[in-house]
Amino acid sequence: MYNLLHELPVDLGDRSYPIMIGEGMLGEYDLSGYVGGSQVMIVTNDVVGPLYLEQARDCFPGKSVDTVVLPDGEKHKDWQTLNLIFDALLEKRHTRKTTLVALGGGVVGDMTGFAAASYQRGVPFIQIPTTLLSQVDSSVGGKTGINHPLGKNMIGAFHQPEAVLIDTDTLQSLPPREVSAGLAEVIKYGLIRDAAFLDWLEQAIDPLVARDNQALAEAIFRSCACKADVVAQDERENGLRATLNLGHTFGHAMETFAGYGNWLHGEAVGTGMIMAADLSAREGSISQDDYDRIVRIVSRASLPAWPPTNMTPADFMNLMAVDKKNVDGRLRLVLLRSVGDAVVTSDASPENLAATLKAFCRQ
Amino acid sequence: MYNLLHELPVDLGDRSYPIMIGEGMLGEYDLSGYVGGSQVMIVTNDVVGPLYLEQARDCFPGKSVDTVVLPDGEKHKDWQTLNLIFDALLEKRHTRKTTLVALGGGVVGDMTGFAAASYQRGVPFIQIPTTLLSQVDSSVGGKTGINHPLGKNMIGAFHQPEAVLIDTDTLQSLPPREVSAGLAEVIKYGLIRDAAFLDWLEQAIDPLVARDNQALAEAIFRSCACKADVVAQDERENGLRATLNLGHTFGHAMETFAGYGNWLHGEAVGTGMIMAADLSAREGSISQDDYDRIVRIVSRASLPAWPPTNMTPADFMNLMAVDKKNVDGRLRLVLLRSVGDAVVTSDASPENLAATLKAFCRQ
Repeated sequence: MYNLLHELPVDLGDRSYPIMIGEGMLGEYDLSGYVGGSQVMIVTNDVVGPLYLEQARDCFPGKSVDTVVLPDGEKHKDWQTLNLIFDALLEKRHTRKTTLVALGGGVVGDMTGFAAASYQRGVPFIQIPTTLLSQVDSSVGGKTGINHPLGKNMIGAFHQPEAVLIDTDTLQSLPPREVSAGLAEVIKYGLIRDAAFLDWLEQAIDPLVARDNQALAEAIFRSCACKADVVAQDERENGLRATLNLGHTFGHAMETFAGYGNWLHGEAVGTGMIMAADLSAREGSISQDDYDRIVRIVSRASLPAWPPTNMTPADFMNLMAVDKKNVDGRLRLVLLRSVGDAVVTSDASPENLAATLKAFCRQ
Repeated sequence: MYNLLHELPVDLGDRSYPIMIGEGMLGEYDLSGYVGGSQVMIVTNDVVGPLYLEQARDCFPGKSVDTVVLPDGEKHKDWQTLNLIFDALLEKRHTRKTTLVALGGGVVGDMTGFAAASYQRGVPFIQIPTTLLSQVDSSVGGKTGINHPLGKNMIGAFHQPEAVLIDTDTLQSLPPREVSAGLAEVIKYGLIRDAAFLDWLEQAIDPLVARDNQALAEAIFRSCACKADVVAQDERENGLRATLNLGHTFGHAMETFAGYGNWLHGEAVGTGMIMAADLSAREGSISQDDYDRIVRIVSRASLPAWPPTNMTPADFMNLMAVDKKNVDGRLRLVLLRSVGDAVVTSDASPENLAATLKAFCRQ
């Protein structure tokens, strides 16, 4: 029997959807009410598929379920792999009434979501995220897409799911490095808009790293609630939603420099948040104590605190200039106004930015 | 000096946009008011580019204009060619505030629109259609996309342009076969919802084939007004908009059978409309005289009245089953209730459909 702990509504008008969080959900919870037609295509990868694909099938009683298994990894978040989904849909003659299901981490979710946004100009989809990172971040909010050799997530769409099913049991099979990567995004929510949550995280960080189910369920719920609140206020990222990108501009530059997949997204965000905190301190928004506190919790989550060894300030500047958070050529960054409050700004002084890059680059 | 003959509003709430129809517009009409940022990327092909690219640049005074030239033809309406647009945007560091401009026929318009829908999860675009078909059909209504080896337009998005600029002068350089292909869609509007327009077309068909500017401008305006009215009522094709697909289910099967690009889309639609009219007559909705009248006007537009010689009824059935107009496995077709009134229906008798296919297939 499953144990549904939280049902969280994401309020987006006629594109609203629920997030179900619980234990023992896979294989037990009936999702067929979220499927409009008779056809379902479950998309997973060759790591998650062997563990959970048969259980996921059982969530759709009475439906005609086909499956497609993609190669695992960020390096496969490309057109060639996306096209395997279209091939399967067309070979199995899925109509405009089909429903896609993403079973896996952020890469599977982003690609399945973009396939759903684009197949026959748009079909519905359901998210079943199986990593901590995708549970607290990429499964909420409707951002979908693939990478381009010249930039991450450069090709995609906004496409909201019909429902998100989060089973905390799936986290027990996750490598420790991926748990830490997910915690980077969890910490982010505390930093950008919930100081009380950050206080809680400082108490709970060791149980979280040790994968205590109780602590994980609470962290996922509060993170999803935070993100759902932001997305409901600014679905298309015209303002507030951009604060969710704390650490991401530095982070994307590191991921691109290291080559897709060598750094986990959450690892790059962890280091990126420390760099953003350093710049915020140089700008006088937060104190040195605040900065130290941020370094400490990121490090306690077993996340890296330094960019790739051979990366230079020039590498950062070059790679950040194509980051999509730029508007009309001005470099926009998310900085902290205080612990628990972030702002998107183009006002950081070039000197302080240069000082931060110099402080973190060992070349 | 340009001569703006019509400005037609397409009413889609906050996605509304105008269609400007006139003579001497390219190079003279100022479109920079429809560009939100400072960057413009004009996408064209290697046939249209040499004729009109420099003039199109002049429509954007004060903007930073880059260009990308794609290989011409339906066979290039694929991911590889689409990616040339993304490559150019990223190499030239176009931000989320860029505006794409489609300069060419339906293929350039569909690909540029899908690139705009997908680049950084969506940027604005402007249509400058240069063929009769794209002026009366694909530039109105926001359907964008590319082909997949297993089906036409299977990957795409609904994405509305900021504005559409139609310069009738561009039709003077068009091959006669493409004028006829455009006239197929013009005739379609008369058949599905405007009997008076069909009466007018029967008077004007010879001047239209002879490319009389006065007749063409009127035909484009009335066609766009008809399509804009349909799209305003049913943007996402939940009902009424599907009647615009008269002849398209048969037509897509012929295009796929012949290999993309061997039959022009409008040619396949011309034959497809005759087949749909034949089935409508067998179903008792229109008279034999109505059917003869439809065959006559399609033929006077120099359009083919027969499918590819070696195509069989089984080929039709097989290729129509993957057509996206199917819902839950039932074959849906657009049929005529009378001349000037179409309906989307799954009710055509299998026997009558078989008889129509048998009558038109010579194998």
